[in-house]
Amino acid sequence: MCVCVCVCVCVCVCVCVCVCVRVCVCVSQYLPSTALNTTLRLQDLRKEMLLRNVAAYIIPATDAHLSEYIAPRDARMAFMTGFTGSAGTAVVTQTKAALWTDSRYWVQAERQMDCHWELEKDVSISSVAQWLISEVPPGGEVGFDPFLFSLKTQEDYRLNLDSSNRTLKSVPVNLVDQVWKQRPPVLLYNLTQRPWQMKVEHVRNQMRDNPYEPTALLLSALDETAWLFNLRGNDIPYNPFFYSYTLLTKDAIWLFLHTDRVTEELRVYLNASCVGSLCVQLRSYDAVRDDLKAYVAEPGVKVWIGTEYTNYALYEIITPEVIRYSISSCLLLFGVYVDTVASLASHWRDVRDAVAVIQLLMWLEKAVPEGKETELTAAQYVDKCRGKQKDSRGPSFETISASGPNAALAHYSPTEETIRRLTVDEMYLVDSGGQYLDGTTDITRTVHWGAPTAMQKEAFTRVLMGNIEISRTVFPSGTRGVNMEMLGRRALWEVGLNYGHGTGHGVGNYFGVHEWPVGFQSNNIPFRSGMFTSIEPGYYKENDFGIRIEDVAVIVPVNTKYGHNYVTFDTVSLVPYDRKLIDTTLLSSEQLRWLNKYYETIRRLVAPELDSQGLKEEKDWMLKHTEPFVEAASSASVWVYLFDHLIGWVNG
Amino acid sequence: MCVCVCVCVCVCVCVCVCVCVRVCVCVSQYLPSTALNTTLRLQDLRKEMLLRNVAAYIIPATDAHLSEYIAPRDARMAFMTGFTGSAGTAVVTQTKAALWTDSRYWVQAERQMDCHWELEKDVSISSVAQWLISEVPPGGEVGFDPFLFSLKTQEDYRLNLDSSNRTLKSVPVNLVDQVWKQRPPVLLYNLTQRPWQMKVEHVRNQMRDNPYEPTALLLSALDETAWLFNLRGNDIPYNPFFYSYTLLTKDAIWLFLHTDRVTEELRVYLNASCVGSLCVQLRSYDAVRDDLKAYVAEPGVKVWIGTEYTNYALYEIITPEVIRYSISSCLLLFGVYVDTVASLASHWRDVRDAVAVIQLLMWLEKAVPEGKETELTAAQYVDKCRGKQKDSRGPSFETISASGPNAALAHYSPTEETIRRLTVDEMYLVDSGGQYLDGTTDITRTVHWGAPTAMQKEAFTRVLMGNIEISRTVFPSGTRGVNMEMLGRRALWEVGLNYGHGTGHGVGNYFGVHEWPVGFQSNNIPFRSGMFTSIEPGYYKENDFGIRIEDVAVIVPVNTKYGHNYVTFDTVSLVPYDRKLIDTTLLSSEQLRWLNKYYETIRRLVAPELDSQGLKEEKDWMLKHTEPFVEAASSASVWVYLFDHLIGWVNG
Repeated sequence: MCVCVCVCVCVCVCVCVCVCVRVCVCVSQYLPSTALNTTLRLQDLRKEMLLRNVAAYIIPATDAHLSEYIAPRDARMAFMTGFTGSAGTAVVTQTKAALWTDSRYWVQAERQMDCHWELEKDVSISSVAQWLISEVPPGGEVGFDPFLFSLKTQEDYRLNLDSSNRTLKSVPVNLVDQVWKQRPPVLLYNLTQRPWQMKVEHVRNQMRDNPYEPTALLLSALDETAWLFNLRGNDIPYNPFFYSYTLLTKDAIWLFLHTDRVTEELRVYLNASCVGSLCVQLRSYDAVRDDLKAYVAEPGVKVWIGTEYTNYALYEIITPEVIRYSISSCLLLFGVYVDTVASLASHWRDVRDAVAVIQLLMWLEKAVPEGKETELTAAQYVDKCRGKQKDSRGPSFETISASGPNAALAHYSPTEETIRRLTVDEMYLVDSGGQYLDGTTDITRTVHWGAPTAMQKEAFTRVLMGNIEISRTVFPSGTRGVNMEMLGRRALWEVGLNYGHGTGHGVGNYFGVHEWPVGFQSNNIPFRSGMFTSIEPGYYKENDFGIRIEDVAVIVPVNTKYGHNYVTFDTVSLVPYDRKLIDTTLLSSEQLRWLNKYYETIRRLVAPELDSQGLKEEKDWMLKHTEPFVEAASSASVWVYLFDHLIGWVNG
Repeated sequence: MCVCVCVCVCVCVCVCVCVCVRVCVCVSQYLPSTALNTTLRLQDLRKEMLLRNVAAYIIPATDAHLSEYIAPRDARMAFMTGFTGSAGTAVVTQTKAALWTDSRYWVQAERQMDCHWELEKDVSISSVAQWLISEVPPGGEVGFDPFLFSLKTQEDYRLNLDSSNRTLKSVPVNLVDQVWKQRPPVLLYNLTQRPWQMKVEHVRNQMRDNPYEPTALLLSALDETAWLFNLRGNDIPYNPFFYSYTLLTKDAIWLFLHTDRVTEELRVYLNASCVGSLCVQLRSYDAVRDDLKAYVAEPGVKVWIGTEYTNYALYEIITPEVIRYSISSCLLLFGVYVDTVASLASHWRDVRDAVAVIQLLMWLEKAVPEGKETELTAAQYVDKCRGKQKDSRGPSFETISASGPNAALAHYSPTEETIRRLTVDEMYLVDSGGQYLDGTTDITRTVHWGAPTAMQKEAFTRVLMGNIEISRTVFPSGTRGVNMEMLGRRALWEVGLNYGHGTGHGVGNYFGVHEWPVGFQSNNIPFRSGMFTSIEPGYYKENDFGIRIEDVAVIVPVNTKYGHNYVTFDTVSLVPYDRKLIDTTLLSSEQLRWLNKYYETIRRLVAPELDSQGLKEEKDWMLKHTEPFVEAASSASVWVYLFDHLIGWVNG
């Protein structure tokens, strides 16, 4: 629960607002209980920096595979700053410390950091570089761990520091690790999809077709190796990946991983005991740098890498025998190749997932008025419901369960300090998803159990209009998501509202819930049939409420009157929206028609599953919440009908 | 007039279609009369290439200022290939010759090139590079004129050829010029806008604020210098620019131009006789390379350039003392700074321009049925009408006047060989614009004087829906055009139609009709209040008809219910659309409302001008064509009205 602390001891003009954020501008500082004291670890790190003669040290939020979700032992930025958001960059000098993160996380950063840390809001590398130029004296060196920098990141920093007389210095020992103890990972098991041998051949064909004639492809991102071999692990929270690298040549496959975890069964699966182009050579995870060095010393080799997801430590030993693309061929195949398989599967995982979310929403409707439930108990409830569904492998990310003002933080998770009790007076947002052996889900619903304000209703309806406008759009296969995502915002823009995050991301198939390269961002690949993406417009009113409506949809072919090769979205998430929050007078007749058709689909697919799980009350709840809305067109028809009857009656 | 030639002498299966394009696949080739015989000039060029030992030679379609419109003497690609489209790249080796151009120009290229030339359709530099790698033997050199390559182009080629063992070779003498004679340019005069001294100070402030501390800014694009000094020339067709470069330092201004054209009055205007930070040093155009070389030899200098518009010849002498941005600070200021001035001006130039287009459309309506008018006479008529308007300075580009299948070529201009007579059986498209002392215009209307087919009507209406959907959209200031332009396509996509060109470009203020950096392309800057852009969706059915509806709009602030800093488009082109082609049942009520409001504006602004020019018949024509459409909402009201009366009557 957030305690309101008014700090009025400062000399500057001080306005008391009830938010649990730090106050660093005043003579007497105020730190909320959520802030971390970083005094000692900063001292330790600065000593390490002095030893290596680096004037500034950059601490990214990623791991050596440039993963989006990282294992706890890789959370170095969080360890140093206190800030636990998923995106950010910290930089430390002998006198200053600063954190860069985007608008989703500004409030959270102010809650979690102490006053040693400046919060910087322009997250571009050029902004970090300008800060470095102003803080590091000419001639000074800026240190970084090359395992935590993609080649592209390293280049961007270098370009931005170019001609400023400050240089980047690769420090292969991580300085944060010197002042921090870590934890080790676990396990590994396989998963049958399309045979990995077929994927290897497919990738080798791409190597053969490449005009630059690579002799090998280096896979560095964790999802690349997991994808290639149909293997899943649990090293990383929420994402079924495991620490690994792969070096694939025309006639050999090297897989670098923690070999003590490889079972005999897995050795057989990977053909690990033979020599040949389809036999996997298992190598120790830590041997990657030396083995790669030995490989590139051979004459005539040329390694294909993806600059976005290869760390600089590997890049610097293979340059110049390297072919650079921003992403590797494997990553490009994810969205198309795997998801085509996934789209062939039924909606079954989505149906089971809908059952869990419907259970949560129904339970909350009854339990909240009694006053005992909190954001945390709600999150636990939905995680438990999902866990009971067939082939569940846990949540696909940490459930976002946020009431009232907490929901205005797009990526909020309840903690002991911030947790709110759920009440009929506040809007509530729940963003959750599951990993299943047959797929990955991600869904957000926003509800109100009492009387929403007119503004809340209007904002919710306009967010829904955005979701529908994207979902119902017909477009040429190969259109980029970034060029369509404004449809998610347009109804909000009309009244001067907007949201500060992306409109959707690719979703994997028992894989990362954020599956690059599909999505609506500028660096995503064009949409094609078979790809899965989330669609998630929102609206956030600071210190008041937050709305997000998120569904997963698969791109499907569509027949048009004149053209060929057009596609549209087929929504696979199957949970109704809160009727109380929909103002149908704002919806166009096309939007209403879409909504009613979607509700029909929910009834058709989810009702049998609720029956088979014996969930009678949940089925009634679902049927009540998917009643068709009256369409404007039909109300016009009613008039015509009445009018005709009246004329008939008059005419007698 | 296009003559139908059936060529059936080839050994392959041959289908006779009536198009005037070359046929190169057969044993016996066919060349239309529009094709240029390039045998001799290719022989000559290949001799020049042998002399310099280059295996391939790249011929871009631009000039040393990387201009979009070029003077005739710079049309080297057209001279070599015969193809006169505005975009393309030619490459010649000892055995092959190839031209790359985009889909707008494929038919035109097939009409204009002989069989020495391959037509390549993927216009990316990587496609050209792959062709070069397949045609140039390892170790071979690829020559280019560094004056005709931007730094970015040179780098893109270099990156794509990297590690292929083919190298780029800068050849400072243009090899095409060795086999071709050219013509010289003329004149120069000044134009009063915001004082150039203010602009110089503004740019110098930007230099001071730049963290890389440039000592000078080099302006290389012709519009940059024209903009900075408020000067206009007529060296380039349609664009009022003149050959020039500017080197602006903190305390000096060098202007490189043909000094024999500078009048005494202009010397005074430019403070050309003094020494000081606001005195312009006039230097000979040809001295730029040597003067720049001398400048960069001074200690501590650092030159700021825009990589998009600086030719490689200048870049290579200033590197490494250079600060690179993709565009210079001046270019960034165009859209904002100048256009803010322009938007302060009245709509008057648009009103006068509308008079000219209305005169054309009214005249065609009467003259076409008589059967004597052609695409060429129509183009001449509108150019003449514009020329009579106050402060006219000629067309802003070559008028596109295209009937029937010719209009399917988005950038067609009538020539003796292709010209069509106008008839009531074909759709007609006219895309034209004017330069005026108080601004630049650009407008396209598509009409049908007979009975359009259902498909033509549907396509036209959906193009119009696209134009309206963009025009009426409210969006946050700072939104990128590329992220909204799908609104221009969406109604077409719905039935499987689309168009292959961009949706709009910036429009200058007595400046380039294509004013970078504003527009709907991915390399345009975000839209802000005061910018002018065209909005021009279309639809083209090959060998049948073409539709484009283009208006110029200015971005204006708009009040929204909840937000601040939102903007929308205000359409300044003021000519009605062809009513016969609009199927109002397809339009949403919002679209109909927008259309009626637009027609009200036309009446309000254009009627007084038609009156004052004594154009009574034109005024009647305009009033007839801007009659309000019946809105769906009002027809519903009619029902309610009738119903109420009926009830009253029954009860009464």
